[in-house]
Amino acid sequence: MKNFEHITLGQRVLFGSGKSAEHLSAEVSRVGASRTMVIASEFERSMAETATAGISPALWWDEVVMHVPVEVAERARAAAVEHDIDLLVCVGGGSTTGLAKAVALATGIPIVAVPTTYAGSEATNVWGMTEERTKTTGVDDKVLPVTVIYDAEFTRSLPVELSVSSGLNALAHCIDSLWAPKADPINQALALEGSRALAAGLAGVAADPNDIDAREETLHGAYLAAVAFASAGSGLHHKICHVLGGTFNLPHAQTHATVLPYVLAFNAPAVPDLAHRLAAALGRPAAGNQDAAQAAVEALNTLRRTLGAPSALIDYGFTADGIPEAVERVLRAVPASNPVTPTEENITGLLTAALHGVTPTAALAAPVEAR
Amino acid sequence: MKNFEHITLGQRVLFGSGKSAEHLSAEVSRVGASRTMVIASEFERSMAETATAGISPALWWDEVVMHVPVEVAERARAAAVEHDIDLLVCVGGGSTTGLAKAVALATGIPIVAVPTTYAGSEATNVWGMTEERTKTTGVDDKVLPVTVIYDAEFTRSLPVELSVSSGLNALAHCIDSLWAPKADPINQALALEGSRALAAGLAGVAADPNDIDAREETLHGAYLAAVAFASAGSGLHHKICHVLGGTFNLPHAQTHATVLPYVLAFNAPAVPDLAHRLAAALGRPAAGNQDAAQAAVEALNTLRRTLGAPSALIDYGFTADGIPEAVERVLRAVPASNPVTPTEENITGLLTAALHGVTPTAALAAPVEAR
Repeated sequence: MKNFEHITLGQRVLFGSGKSAEHLSAEVSRVGASRTMVIASEFERSMAETATAGISPALWWDEVVMHVPVEVAERARAAAVEHDIDLLVCVGGGSTTGLAKAVALATGIPIVAVPTTYAGSEATNVWGMTEERTKTTGVDDKVLPVTVIYDAEFTRSLPVELSVSSGLNALAHCIDSLWAPKADPINQALALEGSRALAAGLAGVAADPNDIDAREETLHGAYLAAVAFASAGSGLHHKICHVLGGTFNLPHAQTHATVLPYVLAFNAPAVPDLAHRLAAALGRPAAGNQDAAQAAVEALNTLRRTLGAPSALIDYGFTADGIPEAVERVLRAVPASNPVTPTEENITGLLTAALHGVTPTAALAAPVEAR
Repeated sequence: MKNFEHITLGQRVLFGSGKSAEHLSAEVSRVGASRTMVIASEFERSMAETATAGISPALWWDEVVMHVPVEVAERARAAAVEHDIDLLVCVGGGSTTGLAKAVALATGIPIVAVPTTYAGSEATNVWGMTEERTKTTGVDDKVLPVTVIYDAEFTRSLPVELSVSSGLNALAHCIDSLWAPKADPINQALALEGSRALAAGLAGVAADPNDIDAREETLHGAYLAAVAFASAGSGLHHKICHVLGGTFNLPHAQTHATVLPYVLAFNAPAVPDLAHRLAAALGRPAAGNQDAAQAAVEALNTLRRTLGAPSALIDYGFTADGIPEAVERVLRAVPASNPVTPTEENITGLLTAALHGVTPTAALAAPVEAR
């Protein structure tokens, strides 16, 4: 039986390659803004100039720092108030969107976001700020951009390697959404479509970085990944990566890219219907539910090989010595929604396989103990 | 290249069989309403009593009339104002939700909708009223229910035959959304998931009307159908049915159920990717894009046979004499987005096949002239 609460966040998406200036100027007119603050780092400046070609910003702001330090947010907020700003336009990646959200949180000024990466922050009502090395996050509808303008031309600023890791990170959002604590049939549908678009798009970008259709597909997928993940929450995959990053200081992108197939191999046999749909989304439809988990895992393995994704945690500084502590921390964090009951034994098996880059297969976490 | 504007309407969905009273009372607390007006027809009264068991309504309203006559809306609005109502709760089908919307339009009072059919009005910001036999419709975010409470137990009030026609109508919303004027990858994803859920759910309800899982699946699909259709607009199918209903007075449900497979057979060969995904959603994955159109059509034919759906317009009063006028009217109405260019010849072919109930096949509208 289905029993869930699903909140859909209201938002306008304008999508078109090479159309950011046209879309932004229409949007500024539509909301009736007259004093716009453009937030973009120095690196993002030229893209911001392209996007704002049709409007006359009242203020440019380029102090953008990763993890949004409180003092930076405070300076940006003061500038927005001083200049009577009535619309924030952020052009850039997650840190840039994050700064706009911090300003919106304090002032209520609406945001139009023009993302240039696959980070996905633009589709959520989650904000984050850092004070004395501690990150605080929260949820507030004021920080949800009213409109997102997607222009795949801007993703050309991402080197292919970063496209791949950022895109696989988005795919992890989709796949982990399938069994996250607030997973429901609506965010699962969005996550599966996001998986389809990301798998097809990333393979295309890797084959030809100038393939704009593939970049559009990837960007579309990254948007759906953010919508699904914001709705469903963090599942097993994100709990494991959080432990590996936080306690063992492993690098974010590589950890996500390495761990994902092992989590899929671990959980998929216990959710054959979802595995069946995921396998189809990843381009390898299974004949029946029995074969679906393995088909989904193989499809992800193939994609990762195509993309040259990292495959073993040992290459990033993790060692067998760390496994017992990691297992203990993961077991404390795994959401009750996880389709397979985690045990010391099976999580040790998962991490050991990921440590050495053993080819993930659906039999990896056997015996499957479905809840 | 993708180029689109997509508006997502913000809304909360609470889904659970037998949980309407619990969900409604939590929701009334959450929005802080103290004077609730319950709108439900006499037929819907017992369901409304079940749903409102945990709250104390200030006013009950049972004058509900199809197509929302202006004078009925005006009386309900006056009562809401007179009784200082701060929340409208509608429990029922499309006409009941429609009346709540008419009151909200004039007063701005928020709506919590508890749908008991697959009509889908609860998920849209579209309102409609009738004055002197003329229906006026419009779009206003004020009429979008803030929360929808789905309780599949209430769909037991629908006889199986009505479940089938109402469900096929929802499926028509999904399929026609694929090529409607504002179709985009986001509403297409929702439409495909809606198709999957409706096909699986309706077959289950037909096999066993007491199968609550199947009723939930159908209700979930009907919700997604409404979301997708509200976003994408009317395509060829709805234009044809509008002509057959408006000019030739054919019955609504039967006309939709009969025409749908012919429109699918007509368009699918020109959109092989979508046909491929639709075929998979309808449970008949195709090996390649070449076979996808036929696979999708066959899956729909099979579903319709399983459901005992009507199959020929001749059974509902349409005749060959009417075809030339119908074709002329359809040709004027078909949206430019339709994947196959409509001609006098191919629309005549489509209607002739639907008239006699010729088994729809993907070769029906050949030669396909893809745009």
